[in-house]
Amino acid sequence: MKVLVVGASGLIGRAVADELAKKHEVIRASRNGDVQVDVNNPESIAQMFKQVGKLDAVAFAAGKVPFKKLDELDRADFINGLTDKAIGQIDLVLKGTDYLTDGGSFTLMSGVLAREAIITGAVASAANGAIESFVMAASVELPRGIRINSISPNVLVESPGYHDYFPGFEQVKLSDVVRLYIKSIEGPQTGQVYKLG
Amino acid sequence: MKVLVVGASGLIGRAVADELAKKHEVIRASRNGDVQVDVNNPESIAQMFKQVGKLDAVAFAAGKVPFKKLDELDRADFINGLTDKAIGQIDLVLKGTDYLTDGGSFTLMSGVLAREAIITGAVASAANGAIESFVMAASVELPRGIRINSISPNVLVESPGYHDYFPGFEQVKLSDVVRLYIKSIEGPQTGQVYKLG
Repeated sequence: MKVLVVGASGLIGRAVADELAKKHEVIRASRNGDVQVDVNNPESIAQMFKQVGKLDAVAFAAGKVPFKKLDELDRADFINGLTDKAIGQIDLVLKGTDYLTDGGSFTLMSGVLAREAIITGAVASAANGAIESFVMAASVELPRGIRINSISPNVLVESPGYHDYFPGFEQVKLSDVVRLYIKSIEGPQTGQVYKLG
Repeated sequence: MKVLVVGASGLIGRAVADELAKKHEVIRASRNGDVQVDVNNPESIAQMFKQVGKLDAVAFAAGKVPFKKLDELDRADFINGLTDKAIGQIDLVLKGTDYLTDGGSFTLMSGVLAREAIITGAVASAANGAIESFVMAASVELPRGIRINSISPNVLVESPGYHDYFPGFEQVKLSDVVRLYIKSIEGPQTGQVYKLG
């Protein structure tokens, strides 16, 4: 398979790309990588797909949202967070579909805040909720057997900087997150949210 | 109680306002109503709250999203749909909290497309998913016992124009939707998504 990993310079994206590279041809895209992309910029997404050509899978692992207390958030925080994390990924699907081979796949990233609350997590929750319902909805409309799933992990063991914000939450291993990307890319399922922790 | 109904000129909003008016003081806001508001315009939301003053509950029943096939949707459709339906409601919460009495409530509106797919429903699904996860997240951060829930109905018996888009979906009665708004406003719960059908 030829797989495009978007967000390949991040903790999860790099690990996913490294694992995939054992069996597949991997193209690594990120804001400052070999293949450059800014998912906030629709022209940049279009240019990336034009550059890389036909693909068997697109995996996304990025997205930035503000973490602030609810009474410190304003409308712009939600617009920016939903645009960067949710609409950025959705636009990858809209613009990438024509580049996928029959039966190819999109694997998006959401997270535990779609289903559980932390203090300062309201924007992340809204963005993750949007992604998970979008994946379910898009799965019935994608053409030519193209599949779409989302990986929805709890906080990572390997991200200690976040642990204090997730007291008592199950800490999951990066290797298990990577495993779920493989399950989505190499498996047959679609419209699934693979929850971890 | 003094209750503000936003979207009071629509099918659901009018029925909710009429039922509430049997027991409570009801203020009806809509794009062209006595109290005018455009939830796409943050100044308009701020002005509305300033005009109506202290409240015991805010109920929302509106939101417009484009219904188009996935391959006809573009990034702007998602930005517009998420802004009108999800961020409009979220901004009501952000700006309205200071006007709510202790233990007051917000009741938002999502819908079945957060959890089930129809052809042309991808934007509605993303917006509803965002709302439902936001409600869960905001419920742990609202001050002074202020509550927040969402009503998430299936297609309405009373909206026959939509029936063909929801083949075999359970058609729910407007009166049951209204009942769930009452449950949210007069009951004690918070962080709930009241699913119907």
